[in-house]
Amino acid sequence: MHELALLNSIYERSKQLPGVTIGPGDDMGELLLGDQKILCAVDQLIVGRHVASETKPELIGRKAVARCFSDIAAMGGTPLGSLMTASVPSSSTNHWCETVFLSAKDVAGQWGGPIFGGDIASSDGPAIFTVTAIATPPESGAILRTGAKENDYVCVTGELGNSIAEHHLSFTPRIREAQELLSFLGDDLHSMIDISDGLGQDASHLATKELQLVIDTDLLPLRVGATIERAVSDGEDYELLFTSATAPPDYLAKVIGTVQQGTNKVITTTGTVIADCGWSHQ
Amino acid sequence: MHELALLNSIYERSKQLPGVTIGPGDDMGELLLGDQKILCAVDQLIVGRHVASETKPELIGRKAVARCFSDIAAMGGTPLGSLMTASVPSSSTNHWCETVFLSAKDVAGQWGGPIFGGDIASSDGPAIFTVTAIATPPESGAILRTGAKENDYVCVTGELGNSIAEHHLSFTPRIREAQELLSFLGDDLHSMIDISDGLGQDASHLATKELQLVIDTDLLPLRVGATIERAVSDGEDYELLFTSATAPPDYLAKVIGTVQQGTNKVITTTGTVIADCGWSHQ
Repeated sequence: MHELALLNSIYERSKQLPGVTIGPGDDMGELLLGDQKILCAVDQLIVGRHVASETKPELIGRKAVARCFSDIAAMGGTPLGSLMTASVPSSSTNHWCETVFLSAKDVAGQWGGPIFGGDIASSDGPAIFTVTAIATPPESGAILRTGAKENDYVCVTGELGNSIAEHHLSFTPRIREAQELLSFLGDDLHSMIDISDGLGQDASHLATKELQLVIDTDLLPLRVGATIERAVSDGEDYELLFTSATAPPDYLAKVIGTVQQGTNKVITTTGTVIADCGWSHQ
Repeated sequence: MHELALLNSIYERSKQLPGVTIGPGDDMGELLLGDQKILCAVDQLIVGRHVASETKPELIGRKAVARCFSDIAAMGGTPLGSLMTASVPSSSTNHWCETVFLSAKDVAGQWGGPIFGGDIASSDGPAIFTVTAIATPPESGAILRTGAKENDYVCVTGELGNSIAEHHLSFTPRIREAQELLSFLGDDLHSMIDISDGLGQDASHLATKELQLVIDTDLLPLRVGATIERAVSDGEDYELLFTSATAPPDYLAKVIGTVQQGTNKVITTTGTVIADCGWSHQ
Protein backbone atom coordinates (compact mmCIF):
# COMPACT_ATOMS: atom_id res chain seq x y z
CA MET A 1 0.00 0.00 0.00
CA HIS A 2 1.32 3.44 -0.87
CA GLU A 3 -0.19 5.87 1.64
CA LEU A 4 0.38 9.09 -0.26
CA ALA A 5 -0.92 7.76 -3.56
CA LEU A 6 -3.99 6.45 -1.78
CA LEU A 7 -4.59 9.70 0.10
CA ASN A 8 -4.24 11.72 -3.08
CA SER A 9 -6.68 9.47 -4.88
CA ILE A 10 -9.23 9.88 -2.09
CA TYR A 11 -8.65 13.63 -1.78
CA GLU A 12 -9.18 14.12 -5.49
CA ARG A 13 -12.71 12.81 -5.08
CA SER A 14 -13.50 14.84 -1.96
CA LYS A 15 -13.36 18.41 -3.18
CA GLN A 16 -16.19 20.91 -2.77
CA LEU A 17 -18.17 19.29 0.01
CA PRO A 18 -21.24 21.15 1.35
CA GLY A 19 -20.51 23.13 4.53
CA VAL A 20 -16.79 22.33 4.28
CA THR A 21 -14.64 25.48 4.03
CA ILE A 22 -11.29 23.62 4.07
CA GLY A 23 -11.35 20.10 2.61
CA PRO A 24 -8.89 17.21 2.84
CA GLY A 25 -5.25 18.02 2.04
CA ASP A 26 -4.33 20.68 4.58
CA ASP A 27 -3.23 20.16 8.21
CA MET A 28 -6.85 20.38 9.37
CA GLY A 29 -10.25 20.47 7.74
CA GLU A 30 -12.70 23.27 8.46
CA LEU A 31 -16.49 23.27 8.82
CA LEU A 32 -18.98 26.10 8.77
CA LEU A 33 -21.32 26.19 11.78
CA GLY A 34 -23.72 29.12 11.59
CA ASP A 35 -21.46 32.18 11.47
CA GLN A 36 -18.53 30.34 13.06
CA LYS A 37 -15.87 27.99 11.75
CA ILE A 38 -14.33 24.96 13.42
CA LEU A 39 -11.11 23.18 12.55
CA CYS A 40 -10.86 19.38 12.94
CA ALA A 41 -8.08 16.85 12.43
CA VAL A 42 -7.38 13.27 13.44
CA ASP A 43 -4.04 11.53 13.82
CA GLN A 44 -2.97 7.98 14.66
CA LEU A 45 -0.09 6.87 16.85
CA ILE A 46 0.91 3.23 16.34
CA VAL A 47 3.10 1.76 19.07
CA GLY A 48 6.08 0.05 17.45
CA ARG A 49 5.92 2.42 14.50
CA HIS A 50 5.57 6.03 15.69
CA VAL A 51 7.10 5.23 19.09
CA ALA A 52 9.22 2.29 20.19
CA SER A 53 7.28 -0.43 22.02
CA GLU A 54 9.28 0.06 25.22
CA THR A 55 8.44 3.79 25.41
CA LYS A 56 7.01 4.84 28.78
CA PRO A 57 3.20 5.01 28.63
CA GLU A 58 3.27 8.61 29.91
CA LEU A 59 5.29 9.63 26.84
CA ILE A 60 3.06 7.65 24.47
CA GLY A 61 -0.04 9.50 25.69
CA ARG A 62 1.77 12.81 25.50
CA LYS A 63 2.97 12.25 21.94
CA ALA A 64 -0.45 11.05 20.71
CA VAL A 65 -1.92 14.42 21.71
CA ALA A 66 1.11 16.54 20.80
CA ARG A 67 1.40 15.40 17.18
CA CYS A 68 -2.30 16.03 16.56
CA PHE A 69 -2.24 19.42 18.30
CA SER A 70 0.77 20.34 16.14
CA ASP A 71 -1.76 20.47 13.29
CA ILE A 72 -3.69 23.12 15.24
CA ALA A 73 -0.47 25.18 15.45
CA ALA A 74 0.06 24.79 11.69
CA MET A 75 -3.31 26.47 11.03
CA GLY A 76 -2.76 29.23 13.62
CA GLY A 77 -5.70 27.81 15.58
CA THR A 78 -6.76 27.66 19.24
CA PRO A 79 -7.60 24.25 20.78
CA LEU A 80 -11.18 23.69 21.96
CA GLY A 81 -11.32 19.99 22.82
CA SER A 82 -10.27 16.53 21.75
CA LEU A 83 -11.36 12.90 21.52
CA MET A 84 -9.17 9.82 21.94
CA THR A 85 -9.48 6.18 20.93
CA ALA A 86 -7.40 3.23 22.04
CA SER A 87 -7.17 -0.11 20.31
CA VAL A 88 -4.91 -2.23 22.50
CA PRO A 89 -3.81 -5.86 22.70
CA SER A 90 -5.80 -7.91 25.22
CA SER A 91 -2.52 -8.47 27.05
CA SER A 92 -2.20 -4.77 27.95
CA THR A 93 -2.85 -4.07 31.60
CA ASN A 94 -5.50 -1.60 32.70
CA HIS A 95 -2.71 0.31 34.45
CA TRP A 96 -0.71 0.73 31.24
CA CYS A 97 -3.79 1.95 29.33
CA GLU A 98 -4.81 4.28 32.15
CA THR A 99 -1.34 5.79 32.29
CA VAL A 100 -1.40 6.50 28.53
CA PHE A 101 -4.88 8.05 28.78
CA LEU A 102 -4.26 10.11 31.89
CA SER A 103 -1.04 11.52 30.48
CA ALA A 104 -2.88 12.39 27.24
CA LYS A 105 -5.69 13.95 29.28
CA ASP A 106 -3.22 16.06 31.28
CA VAL A 107 -1.41 17.58 28.30
CA ALA A 108 -4.61 18.04 26.26
CA GLY A 109 -6.09 19.98 29.18
CA GLN A 110 -2.93 22.03 29.70
CA TRP A 111 -2.90 22.96 26.03
CA GLY A 112 -6.55 24.06 26.13
CA GLY A 113 -8.18 21.13 24.30
CA PRO A 114 -9.46 18.75 27.03
CA ILE A 115 -10.36 15.17 26.07
CA PHE A 116 -14.16 14.96 26.34
CA GLY A 117 -14.89 11.63 24.70
CA GLY A 118 -13.39 8.52 23.19
CA ASP A 119 -13.57 4.80 22.61
CA ILE A 120 -11.59 1.79 23.83
CA ALA A 121 -11.41 -1.65 22.23
CA SER A 122 -9.09 -4.63 22.34
CA SER A 123 -7.50 -6.04 19.19
CA ASP A 124 -4.88 -8.57 18.15
CA GLY A 125 -2.60 -5.93 16.69
CA PRO A 126 -0.24 -3.31 18.09
CA ALA A 127 -1.60 -0.62 20.43
CA ILE A 128 -3.01 2.24 18.36
CA PHE A 129 -4.18 5.57 19.75
CA THR A 130 -6.02 8.16 17.71
CA VAL A 131 -6.58 11.75 18.75
CA THR A 132 -9.17 14.02 17.15
CA ALA A 133 -8.51 17.73 17.71
CA ILE A 134 -11.23 20.39 17.55
CA ALA A 135 -10.09 24.02 17.34
CA THR A 136 -11.10 27.51 16.29
CA PRO A 137 -9.26 29.30 13.46
CA PRO A 138 -7.77 32.76 13.98
CA GLU A 139 -10.21 35.63 13.33
CA SER A 140 -8.39 36.48 10.12
CA GLY A 141 -8.82 32.89 8.91
CA ALA A 142 -6.78 29.68 9.13
CA ILE A 143 -3.28 29.73 7.58
CA LEU A 144 -3.29 27.29 4.67
CA ARG A 145 -0.48 25.36 3.01
CA THR A 146 -1.31 27.11 -0.23
CA GLY A 147 -0.64 30.83 -0.48
CA ALA A 148 3.14 31.21 -0.85
CA LYS A 149 4.09 34.26 -2.95
CA GLU A 150 7.21 35.02 -4.98
CA ASN A 151 10.02 36.51 -2.86
CA ASP A 152 8.48 35.34 0.40
CA TYR A 153 10.94 34.41 3.12
CA VAL A 154 10.93 30.70 4.00
CA CYS A 155 11.17 30.40 7.79
CA VAL A 156 11.23 27.78 10.51
CA THR A 157 10.74 27.78 14.29
CA GLY A 158 13.06 25.90 16.67
CA GLU A 159 15.68 23.43 15.49
CA LEU A 160 15.71 20.57 13.01
CA GLY A 161 17.09 17.02 12.84
CA ASN A 162 17.84 14.22 15.32
CA SER A 163 14.37 14.49 16.83
CA ILE A 164 14.51 10.73 17.44
CA ALA A 165 17.04 11.21 20.26
CA GLU A 166 14.41 12.76 22.53
CA HIS A 167 12.54 15.71 21.00
CA HIS A 168 9.77 13.64 19.34
CA LEU A 169 8.62 12.51 22.79
CA SER A 170 8.95 15.81 24.62
CA PHE A 171 8.03 18.60 22.19
CA THR A 172 5.27 21.09 22.89
CA PRO A 173 3.10 21.92 19.85
CA ARG A 174 3.90 25.44 18.59
CA ILE A 175 0.39 26.76 19.20
CA ARG A 176 1.48 29.87 21.09
CA GLU A 177 4.32 30.60 18.64
CA ALA A 178 1.90 30.36 15.68
CA GLN A 179 -0.36 32.92 17.29
CA GLU A 180 2.58 35.22 18.03
CA LEU A 181 3.74 34.92 14.42
CA LEU A 182 0.25 35.76 13.23
CA SER A 183 0.02 38.76 15.48
CA PHE A 184 3.50 39.95 14.37
CA LEU A 185 3.27 39.20 10.64
CA GLY A 186 -0.48 39.65 10.04
CA ASP A 187 -1.47 39.27 6.39
CA ASP A 188 2.19 38.84 5.42
CA LEU A 189 2.09 35.28 6.81
CA HIS A 190 1.14 33.54 3.57
CA SER A 191 1.42 29.76 4.12
CA MET A 192 2.30 27.35 6.93
CA ILE A 193 2.74 23.65 7.73
CA ASP A 194 4.24 21.68 10.61
CA ILE A 195 7.25 19.51 9.84
CA SER A 196 6.38 15.90 10.54
CA ASP A 197 7.73 14.00 7.53
CA GLY A 198 10.98 15.94 7.00
CA LEU A 199 11.84 19.49 5.88
CA GLY A 200 12.26 18.56 2.19
CA GLN A 201 8.98 16.74 1.85
CA ASP A 202 6.90 19.11 3.96
CA ALA A 203 8.38 22.16 2.22
CA SER A 204 7.18 20.67 -1.06
CA HIS A 205 3.59 21.07 0.17
CA LEU A 206 4.13 24.88 0.32
CA ALA A 207 5.38 24.98 -3.30
CA THR A 208 2.95 25.77 -6.13
CA LYS A 209 2.90 25.02 -9.86
CA GLU A 210 5.08 28.04 -10.65
CA LEU A 211 6.86 28.70 -7.35
CA GLN A 212 9.57 26.65 -5.64
CA LEU A 213 11.21 27.01 -2.23
CA VAL A 214 14.97 27.70 -2.36
CA ILE A 215 16.63 26.63 0.90
CA ASP A 216 20.06 27.82 2.06
CA THR A 217 21.05 24.74 4.05
CA ASP A 218 23.81 26.71 5.81
CA LEU A 219 21.04 28.63 7.55
CA LEU A 220 19.27 25.56 8.96
CA PRO A 221 19.07 25.66 12.77
CA LEU A 222 20.51 22.26 13.77
CA ARG A 223 19.40 20.35 16.85
CA VAL A 224 22.22 18.83 18.95
CA GLY A 225 23.47 15.71 17.16
CA ALA A 226 21.97 16.70 13.79
CA THR A 227 23.76 17.19 10.47
CA ILE A 228 22.43 19.27 7.56
CA GLU A 229 21.40 16.04 5.81
CA ARG A 230 19.43 14.91 8.83
CA ALA A 231 17.85 18.34 9.32
CA VAL A 232 16.53 18.07 5.76
CA SER A 233 15.30 14.47 6.03
CA ASP A 234 14.73 13.29 9.62
CA GLY A 235 11.17 14.43 10.26
CA GLU A 236 9.21 14.46 13.53
CA ASP A 237 10.50 17.98 14.27
CA TYR A 238 6.96 19.33 14.74
CA GLU A 239 8.33 22.80 14.04
CA LEU A 240 6.43 25.38 11.97
CA LEU A 241 7.61 25.97 8.42
CA PHE A 242 6.07 29.05 6.83
CA THR A 243 6.47 31.65 4.09
CA SER A 244 6.06 35.34 4.81
CA ALA A 245 6.52 38.65 2.99
CA THR A 246 8.20 40.05 6.13
CA ALA A 247 10.99 38.39 8.08
CA PRO A 248 9.85 37.22 11.54
CA PRO A 249 11.64 38.36 14.71
CA ASP A 250 14.69 36.19 15.32
CA TYR A 251 13.47 34.85 18.66
CA LEU A 252 10.36 33.37 17.00
CA ALA A 253 11.78 31.84 13.81
CA LYS A 254 14.79 31.76 11.47
CA VAL A 255 14.86 32.63 7.76
CA ILE A 256 16.20 29.61 5.83
CA GLY A 257 15.37 30.52 2.23
CA THR A 258 13.09 32.28 -0.23
CA VAL A 259 10.24 31.54 -2.61
CA GLN A 260 11.26 31.82 -6.28
CA GLN A 261 9.87 31.02 -9.71
CA GLY A 262 10.62 27.41 -10.65
CA THR A 263 9.07 23.97 -10.81
CA ASN A 264 11.40 21.86 -8.68
CA LYS A 265 9.21 22.27 -5.55
CA VAL A 266 12.20 22.49 -3.15
CA ILE A 267 15.88 22.99 -3.99
CA THR A 268 19.02 24.10 -2.18
CA THR A 269 20.84 27.28 -3.21
CA THR A 270 23.37 24.99 -4.91
CA GLY A 271 20.62 23.43 -7.04
CA THR A 272 20.05 20.05 -5.37
CA VAL A 273 16.39 19.01 -5.42
CA ILE A 274 15.35 18.01 -1.87
CA ALA A 275 11.56 17.89 -2.34
CA ASP A 276 11.45 14.15 -1.68
CA CYS A 277 13.73 14.10 1.37
CA GLY A 278 11.92 12.66 4.38
CA TRP A 279 9.71 9.86 5.60
CA SER A 280 8.62 7.42 2.91
CA HIS A 281 4.86 6.72 3.16
CA GLN A 282 4.95 3.15 1.87
CA MET B 1 -8.16 -5.56 30.03
CA HIS B 2 -11.73 -4.81 31.03
CA GLU B 3 -12.98 -2.03 28.75
CA LEU B 4 -15.88 -0.82 30.84
CA ALA B 5 -13.93 -0.70 34.09
CA LEU B 6 -11.19 1.22 32.32
CA LEU B 7 -13.61 3.66 30.69
CA ASN B 8 -15.36 4.28 34.00
CA SER B 9 -12.05 4.92 35.71
CA ILE B 10 -11.06 7.45 33.04
CA TYR B 11 -14.50 9.11 32.98
CA GLU B 12 -14.44 9.55 36.73
CA ARG B 13 -11.40 11.76 36.34
CA SER B 14 -12.76 13.73 33.39
CA LYS B 15 -15.72 15.56 34.84
CA GLN B 16 -16.18 19.32 34.70
CA LEU B 17 -13.86 20.23 31.89
CA PRO B 18 -13.71 23.88 30.77
CA GLY B 19 -15.86 24.60 27.70
CA VAL B 20 -17.31 21.07 27.77
CA THR B 21 -21.11 21.04 28.16
CA ILE B 22 -21.47 17.22 27.87
CA GLY B 23 -18.48 15.22 29.11
CA PRO B 24 -17.50 11.58 28.60
CA GLY B 25 -20.19 8.99 29.33
CA ASP B 26 -22.99 9.89 26.92
CA ASP B 27 -23.31 8.93 23.25
CA MET B 28 -21.48 12.10 22.21
CA GLY B 29 -19.57 14.86 23.97
CA GLU B 30 -20.54 18.50 23.52
CA LEU B 31 -18.41 21.64 23.30
CA LEU B 32 -19.34 25.28 23.62
CA LEU B 33 -18.19 27.45 20.71
CA GLY B 34 -19.24 31.07 21.16
CA ASP B 35 -23.02 30.92 21.43
CA GLN B 36 -23.23 27.58 19.60
CA LYS B 37 -22.74 23.98 20.66
CA ILE B 38 -21.17 21.11 18.74
CA LEU B 39 -21.50 17.39 19.38
CA CYS B 40 -18.53 15.09 18.73
CA ALA B 41 -17.98 11.34 18.98
CA VAL B 42 -15.46 8.83 17.72
CA ASP B 43 -15.92 5.12 17.11
CA GLN B 44 -13.63 2.30 16.01
CA LEU B 45 -14.41 -0.55 13.65
CA ILE B 46 -11.97 -3.46 13.89
CA VAL B 47 -12.07 -5.90 10.97
CA GLY B 48 -12.28 -9.43 12.37
CA ARG B 49 -14.05 -8.17 15.49
CA HIS B 50 -16.86 -5.78 14.54
CA VAL B 51 -17.18 -7.25 11.04
CA ALA B 52 -15.99 -10.59 9.66
CA SER B 53 -12.73 -10.39 7.72
CA GLU B 54 -14.35 -11.54 4.50
CA THR B 55 -16.96 -8.74 4.59
CA LYS B 56 -17.15 -6.75 1.34
CA PRO B 57 -15.12 -3.53 1.65
CA GLU B 58 -18.18 -1.47 0.60
CA LEU B 59 -20.05 -2.77 3.66
CA ILE B 60 -17.08 -2.20 5.98
CA GLY B 61 -16.90 1.48 4.99
CA ARG B 62 -20.65 1.84 5.32
CA LYS B 63 -20.75 0.29 8.79
CA ALA B 64 -17.79 2.35 10.07
CA VAL B 65 -19.76 5.52 9.35
CA ALA B 66 -23.21 4.15 10.27
CA ARG B 67 -22.30 3.04 13.80
CA CYS B 68 -20.70 6.39 14.60
CA PHE B 69 -23.59 8.36 13.08
CA SER B 70 -25.98 6.25 15.18
CA ASP B 71 -24.57 8.24 18.13
CA ILE B 72 -25.73 11.43 16.42
CA ALA B 73 -29.24 9.95 16.23
CA ALA B 74 -29.10 9.05 19.93
CA MET B 75 -28.56 12.73 20.82
CA GLY B 76 -31.22 14.00 18.40
CA GLY B 77 -28.45 15.75 16.46
CA THR B 78 -27.87 16.78 12.85
CA PRO B 79 -24.63 15.66 11.12
CA LEU B 80 -22.19 18.39 10.03
CA GLY B 81 -19.10 16.47 8.94
CA SER B 82 -16.80 13.59 9.73
CA LEU B 83 -13.18 12.43 9.77
CA MET B 84 -11.90 8.94 9.07
CA THR B 85 -8.68 7.07 9.85
CA ALA B 86 -7.45 3.77 8.49
CA SER B 87 -4.77 1.58 9.98
CA VAL B 88 -4.38 -1.32 7.58
CA PRO B 89 -2.01 -4.27 7.09
CA SER B 90 0.71 -3.59 4.50
CA SER B 91 -0.74 -6.51 2.53
CA SER B 92 -4.00 -4.63 1.88
CA THR B 93 -4.33 -3.45 -1.69
CA ASN B 94 -4.91 0.20 -2.53
CA HIS B 95 -8.10 -0.92 -4.25
CA TRP B 96 -9.50 -2.53 -1.09
CA CYS B 97 -8.69 0.57 1.01
CA GLU B 98 -10.12 2.91 -1.61
CA THR B 99 -13.33 0.90 -1.79
CA VAL B 100 -13.76 1.10 2.01
CA PHE B 101 -13.08 4.85 1.98
CA LEU B 102 -15.24 5.71 -1.01
CA SER B 103 -18.16 3.74 0.38
CA ALA B 104 -17.74 5.54 3.72
CA LYS B 105 -17.51 8.86 1.89
CA ASP B 106 -20.70 8.16 -0.05
CA VAL B 107 -22.88 7.32 2.96
CA ALA B 108 -21.38 10.07 5.13
CA GLY B 109 -22.24 12.58 2.40
CA GLN B 110 -25.74 11.16 1.90
CA TRP B 111 -26.40 11.42 5.63
CA GLY B 112 -25.25 15.05 5.73
CA GLY B 113 -21.86 14.61 7.43
CA PRO B 114 -19.27 14.51 4.61
CA ILE B 115 -15.78 13.18 5.35
CA PHE B 116 -13.48 16.22 5.19
CA GLY B 117 -10.24 14.84 6.63
CA GLY B 118 -8.48 11.75 7.87
CA ASP B 119 -5.30 9.77 8.23
CA ILE B 120 -3.97 6.53 6.75
CA ALA B 121 -1.17 4.35 8.12
CA SER B 122 -0.04 0.78 7.72
CA SER B 123 0.35 -1.54 10.71
CA ASP B 124 0.99 -5.21 11.48
CA GLY B 125 -2.44 -5.68 13.04
CA PRO B 126 -5.97 -6.06 11.75
CA ALA B 127 -7.49 -3.28 9.64
CA ILE B 128 -8.99 -0.64 11.94
CA PHE B 129 -11.13 2.28 10.81
CA THR B 130 -12.17 5.12 13.08
CA VAL B 131 -14.84 7.67 12.29
CA THR B 132 -15.20 10.97 14.12
CA ALA B 133 -18.63 12.54 13.79
CA ILE B 134 -19.30 16.28 14.21
CA ALA B 135 -22.93 17.35 14.62
CA THR B 136 -25.20 20.08 15.94
CA PRO B 137 -27.61 19.39 18.81
CA PRO B 138 -31.34 20.13 18.47
CA GLU B 139 -32.30 23.72 19.39
CA SER B 140 -33.92 22.47 22.58
CA GLY B 141 -30.67 20.74 23.57
CA ALA B 142 -29.19 17.26 23.05
CA ILE B 143 -31.17 14.31 24.46
CA LEU B 144 -29.06 12.74 27.21
CA ARG B 145 -29.01 9.22 28.65
CA THR B 146 -29.87 10.67 32.02
CA GLY B 147 -33.33 12.20 32.46
CA ALA B 148 -35.77 9.26 32.71
CA LYS B 149 -38.76 10.05 34.98
CA GLU B 150 -41.09 7.76 36.92
CA ASN B 151 -44.00 6.44 34.80
CA ASP B 152 -42.23 7.28 31.52
CA TYR B 153 -42.95 4.90 28.67
CA VAL B 154 -39.91 2.89 27.54
CA CYS B 155 -39.92 2.78 23.74
CA VAL B 156 -37.85 1.44 20.88
CA THR B 157 -37.71 2.10 17.12
CA GLY B 158 -37.56 -0.70 14.53
CA GLU B 159 -36.95 -4.33 15.46
CA LEU B 160 -34.53 -6.13 17.75
CA GLY B 161 -32.37 -9.27 17.63
CA ASN B 162 -30.58 -11.29 14.96
CA SER B 163 -28.86 -8.18 13.60
CA ILE B 164 -25.88 -10.37 12.75
CA ALA B 165 -27.79 -12.00 9.87
CA GLU B 166 -27.62 -8.80 7.81
CA HIS B 167 -28.98 -5.71 9.59
CA HIS B 168 -25.65 -4.71 11.23
CA LEU B 169 -24.18 -4.16 7.76
CA SER B 170 -27.14 -2.44 6.12
CA PHE B 171 -28.85 -0.29 8.77
CA THR B 172 -29.37 3.43 8.34
CA PRO B 173 -28.73 5.47 11.50
CA ARG B 174 -32.04 6.70 12.95
CA ILE B 175 -31.18 10.38 12.57
CA ARG B 176 -34.41 11.36 10.84
CA GLU B 177 -36.53 9.27 13.22
CA ALA B 178 -34.89 10.92 16.25
CA GLN B 179 -35.76 14.34 14.89
CA GLU B 180 -39.35 13.27 14.19
CA LEU B 181 -39.63 11.89 17.73
CA LEU B 182 -38.32 15.16 19.10
CA SER B 183 -40.75 17.17 17.05
CA PHE B 184 -43.66 14.92 18.11
CA LEU B 185 -42.78 14.43 21.78
CA GLY B 186 -41.00 17.72 22.54
CA ASP B 187 -40.02 18.08 26.20
CA ASP B 188 -41.72 14.76 27.00
CA LEU B 189 -38.77 12.94 25.38
CA HIS B 190 -36.70 12.52 28.55
CA SER B 191 -33.75 10.22 27.75
CA MET B 192 -32.34 8.34 24.76
CA ILE B 193 -29.56 5.95 23.71
CA ASP B 194 -28.89 3.80 20.65
CA ILE B 195 -28.77 0.02 21.17
CA SER B 196 -25.31 -1.23 20.28
CA ASP B 197 -24.41 -3.61 23.11
CA GLY B 198 -27.84 -5.24 23.62
CA LEU B 199 -31.20 -4.03 24.93
CA GLY B 200 -30.58 -5.15 28.53
CA GLN B 201 -27.22 -3.49 28.88
CA ASP B 202 -28.04 -0.29 27.00
CA ALA B 203 -31.35 0.09 28.87
CA SER B 204 -29.33 0.02 32.11
CA HIS B 205 -27.68 3.28 31.04
CA LEU B 206 -31.12 4.98 31.12
CA ALA B 207 -31.80 3.76 34.68
CA THR B 208 -31.01 5.99 37.65
CA LYS B 209 -30.25 5.37 41.30
CA GLU B 210 -33.94 5.21 42.20
CA LEU B 211 -35.60 4.34 38.89
CA GLN B 212 -35.51 1.08 36.94
CA LEU B 213 -36.85 0.16 33.52
CA VAL B 214 -39.52 -2.54 33.54
CA ILE B 215 -39.67 -4.30 30.15
CA ASP B 216 -42.63 -6.38 28.94
CA THR B 217 -40.74 -8.80 26.73
CA ASP B 218 -43.97 -9.84 25.01
CA LEU B 219 -44.03 -6.35 23.50
CA LEU B 220 -40.53 -6.54 21.97
CA PRO B 221 -40.63 -6.05 18.19
CA LEU B 222 -38.65 -9.07 16.93
CA ARG B 223 -36.57 -9.03 13.76
CA VAL B 224 -36.97 -12.06 11.47
CA GLY B 225 -35.04 -14.96 13.00
CA ALA B 226 -34.90 -13.40 16.48
CA THR B 227 -36.22 -14.81 19.75
CA ILE B 228 -37.09 -12.77 22.84
CA GLU B 229 -33.78 -13.84 24.42
CA ARG B 230 -31.83 -12.65 21.41
CA ALA B 231 -33.77 -9.38 21.20
CA VAL B 232 -32.70 -8.70 24.79
CA SER B 233 -29.04 -9.69 24.32
CA ASP B 234 -27.85 -9.63 20.71
CA GLY B 235 -26.79 -6.02 20.29
CA GLU B 236 -25.83 -4.15 17.10
CA ASP B 237 -29.49 -3.21 16.53
CA TYR B 238 -28.61 0.49 16.28
CA GLU B 239 -32.22 1.28 17.14
CA LEU B 240 -33.21 4.14 19.44
CA LEU B 241 -34.26 3.27 22.99
CA PHE B 242 -35.88 6.15 24.83
CA THR B 243 -38.16 7.11 27.70
CA SER B 244 -41.00 9.56 27.24
CA ALA B 245 -43.94 10.91 29.24
CA THR B 246 -46.15 10.54 26.14
CA ALA B 247 -46.40 7.45 23.98
CA PRO B 248 -44.90 7.95 20.50
CA PRO B 249 -46.96 7.32 17.35
CA ASP B 250 -46.91 3.64 16.49
CA TYR B 251 -45.22 4.12 13.11
CA LEU B 252 -42.20 5.74 14.80
CA ALA B 253 -41.63 3.49 17.83
CA LYS B 254 -43.19 0.82 20.04
CA VAL B 255 -43.83 1.01 23.78
CA ILE B 256 -42.04 -1.93 25.46
CA GLY B 257 -42.21 -0.98 29.13
CA THR B 258 -42.32 1.71 31.79
CA VAL B 259 -40.02 3.48 34.23
CA GLN B 260 -40.72 2.55 37.85
CA GLN B 261 -39.16 3.01 41.27
CA GLY B 262 -36.58 0.32 41.94
CA THR B 263 -32.87 -0.35 41.95
CA ASN B 264 -32.50 -3.34 39.60
CA LYS B 265 -31.69 -1.08 36.61
CA VAL B 266 -33.63 -3.26 34.10
CA ILE B 267 -36.10 -6.05 34.85
CA THR B 268 -38.85 -7.89 32.97
CA THR B 269 -42.49 -7.68 34.13
CA THR B 270 -41.97 -11.17 35.57
CA GLY B 271 -39.06 -9.94 37.68
CA THR B 272 -36.00 -11.23 35.83
CA VAL B 273 -33.06 -8.81 35.97
CA ILE B 274 -31.75 -8.26 32.41
CA ALA B 275 -29.50 -5.26 33.02
CA ASP B 276 -26.36 -7.22 32.14
CA CYS B 277 -27.69 -8.91 29.00
CA GLY B 278 -25.57 -8.02 25.99
CA TRP B 279 -22.05 -7.68 24.68
CA SER B 280 -19.31 -8.35 27.23
CA HIS B 281 -16.63 -5.63 27.09
CA GLN B 282 -13.70 -7.81 28.14
